[in-house]
Amino acid sequence: MPDSIAVADRRPGRPRDTALESTVLAATVELLLERDTRDVTISAITERSGVSRAALYRRWSSREELLAAALDSVRSNVELKRGATTLETILASYEAAAEDVDNRVGALVKKRVALGLENDKLRALSWNRHVSRRREPVAAEIRRGIQVGELSADVDVEAMIDLINGVYYYQMVVREPEPSPDATRERVRNAVKLVWEGALRR
Amino acid sequence: MPDSIAVADRRPGRPRDTALESTVLAATVELLLERDTRDVTISAITERSGVSRAALYRRWSSREELLAAALDSVRSNVELKRGATTLETILASYEAAAEDVDNRVGALVKKRVALGLENDKLRALSWNRHVSRRREPVAAEIRRGIQVGELSADVDVEAMIDLINGVYYYQMVVREPEPSPDATRERVRNAVKLVWEGALRR
Repeated sequence: MPDSIAVADRRPGRPRDTALESTVLAATVELLLERDTRDVTISAITERSGVSRAALYRRWSSREELLAAALDSVRSNVELKRGATTLETILASYEAAAEDVDNRVGALVKKRVALGLENDKLRALSWNRHVSRRREPVAAEIRRGIQVGELSADVDVEAMIDLINGVYYYQMVVREPEPSPDATRERVRNAVKLVWEGALRR
Repeated sequence: MPDSIAVADRRPGRPRDTALESTVLAATVELLLERDTRDVTISAITERSGVSRAALYRRWSSREELLAAALDSVRSNVELKRGATTLETILASYEAAAEDVDNRVGALVKKRVALGLENDKLRALSWNRHVSRRREPVAAEIRRGIQVGELSADVDVEAMIDLINGVYYYQMVVREPEPSPDATRERVRNAVKLVWEGALRR
């Protein structure tokens, strides 16, 4: 293998393009937090990251792709916290994920939504590459619930996830921030329970 | 009444400040559709509407209040289309309202959401003065459903509306626009039915 010597030169366990990728994503995240999104240009990212424009375009085919990747890069994967029922599993997992959203992550999620509203291409990219993929473990858990006979076989899994995720987004995007986070948590919990009440096998 | 002559001078059925209000709101809507929101300044609105800064501030106490009012002014009120059940009433009313959202209204709803994400004060204002008030007829219909024994007495009405509205917003704010609007309508309808399934009195 002709590349073996070059490969041996790299830091162990970290192939070169992963390093490049995380350098560029971190620089882009910094810029997104500092300035208006329109000012997060490829030139600014090149300057901040020290990575050349050519290398950048080898990895991401457009500015939108890079922004979508950066906006997603701060989110951790949904890890299911297994409970006694599918409802408990989903509630515990979503509540843990919501706790994980610190100010920085929250600011970037808001940026992503605002940007997606102004730019259909970016919203489609974010959805296809990132947001829709985060739903997969949730869909798997619901399908498992159907399989074990906990949930009705004719439930529309996509509609169910739209409801759960929709109610979380609604709190951030439409409602006024409440003085008491407990009131929000209680209402969202009631909402998710209501969806489950509708989906239960009878 | 000392004002009676001046009042008689006005066009019948249209008191002077309603005319001022609609002139200013229409000018603000035009500007919001034409340019970046940050460029929709009080000066620009004054210039476009021909209404003085002083008169403008007599009616709205801040730029945020005026923007929130303008963004809301293009929406028609939710009119309940009475069906045989509360589910039919809500579905028919929401679907009719969704049909009413043309490109112009859609663009302004997206502007409102994007703006609210960048500006907590504006989101709170929009929510308190406008958005939360649009929920009232829906809440009344759900409470009626509880009263007639169609829906469970212990349903959390606010959580239920958050679910229904949340699923509509989710389509616009997070999902990619779908090639077939039928697929979206079908999924949203399944979602609303699922909420009702959960809320039914058993």
